[in-house]
Amino acid sequence: MPTLVLLRHGQSAWNLENRFTGWWDVNLTDKGIAEATAAGTAMAAAGLDFDIAFTSVQTRAIRTLNLALEAMDRLWLPVTKNWQLNERHYGGLTGLDKAETAAEHGDDQVRIWRRSFDVPPPPLAPGSPYDLSADRRYAGIAIPAAESLKDTIARVLPYWEGAIVPELRAGKRVIVAAHGNSLRALVKHLSGISDADIVSEEIPTGRPMVYDLADDLTAIGRRYL
Amino acid sequence: MPTLVLLRHGQSAWNLENRFTGWWDVNLTDKGIAEATAAGTAMAAAGLDFDIAFTSVQTRAIRTLNLALEAMDRLWLPVTKNWQLNERHYGGLTGLDKAETAAEHGDDQVRIWRRSFDVPPPPLAPGSPYDLSADRRYAGIAIPAAESLKDTIARVLPYWEGAIVPELRAGKRVIVAAHGNSLRALVKHLSGISDADIVSEEIPTGRPMVYDLADDLTAIGRRYL
Repeated sequence: MPTLVLLRHGQSAWNLENRFTGWWDVNLTDKGIAEATAAGTAMAAAGLDFDIAFTSVQTRAIRTLNLALEAMDRLWLPVTKNWQLNERHYGGLTGLDKAETAAEHGDDQVRIWRRSFDVPPPPLAPGSPYDLSADRRYAGIAIPAAESLKDTIARVLPYWEGAIVPELRAGKRVIVAAHGNSLRALVKHLSGISDADIVSEEIPTGRPMVYDLADDLTAIGRRYL
Repeated sequence: MPTLVLLRHGQSAWNLENRFTGWWDVNLTDKGIAEATAAGTAMAAAGLDFDIAFTSVQTRAIRTLNLALEAMDRLWLPVTKNWQLNERHYGGLTGLDKAETAAEHGDDQVRIWRRSFDVPPPPLAPGSPYDLSADRRYAGIAIPAAESLKDTIARVLPYWEGAIVPELRAGKRVIVAAHGNSLRALVKHLSGISDADIVSEEIPTGRPMVYDLADDLTAIGRRYL
């Protein structure tokens, strides 16, 4: 049976401050570090093991992966990092906390941005301190101005199909350490969740989600460790 | 000018205990963690930057690299891990401290093993607790029973030529985080050091060694940061 585990990064500084983060690169909190290590310990205790790992190019996901792999004595595994596993880009909401956002845009609008499937937030304003166009990790990439969940899915799934599925088909045991919305993209795809329902799928930080997959990679079930 | 930095891992638990480590996978001490982070901070302060990183499959080198890259805000860089950058395999000396080794084998013999270019230590004894034949990170690899420095060089240099040189020739800025003897192999090759002299080349833990390379990758000089 193919092995696939999805792991959302541990608590980040802006998870704690309740701010929209998206592509902004914030680090883990001490709690997030502990969550990541605990995830690795729990996976090892459950007898899970891996041959290859995938993550985003964002520090909070990479560190979560590294801490979990270290706890499993698997820091030596090959790790592939790709921007297509990044968090949803929150555009002009980046850096705002929920109260600020509601004060600026109104509760109803914020609910639409947070909970709609295909409505992107406003684009990042020109000159925003959160502009990533000079960040060379994104050199050659068309950085989105903002993404809906639908937009996020549209760049996660080609990476899933092109990079991750071939490894699973080759019999490799895979862990993907990523973000709330890039993992929603995979869960929606694998578990056939509707556009309406996926927006309220809450994936907790630092808890390994184990997929039971048939040999053809259709999902039989999923569970948190 | 091509950028190449060599970084020996920070202090490990067995560096501290003065034990032969080789391929045995020990972790960093708190001092080693601090050294690795300081190395990253120093490289960033010196304006050094990288496009790709290489390391061994041993935890102490991988963590050193990860800590240094994190301090440089470069955790997102691609990292390739390969056993050919591992420390020299100390065979039957693995796990022994210097005093134990001298008591067992005599000072003169220990000096020969430590300081000769081409005399390997005794092979790992059958049933040794340090036998790695069941460690799947080495699946498909002919794990040596013991290595001289010459043996170590013989598996480091093909990796240098096959994996690292092409990246340098493509204009990539490279950091190699590895071990005392796998880095001696590179220093011997790059700086044309004799068999007799390379055995006493001491590469300190956690101090970035910056190579000044001509475009054809011949070494003009090297310095510690």
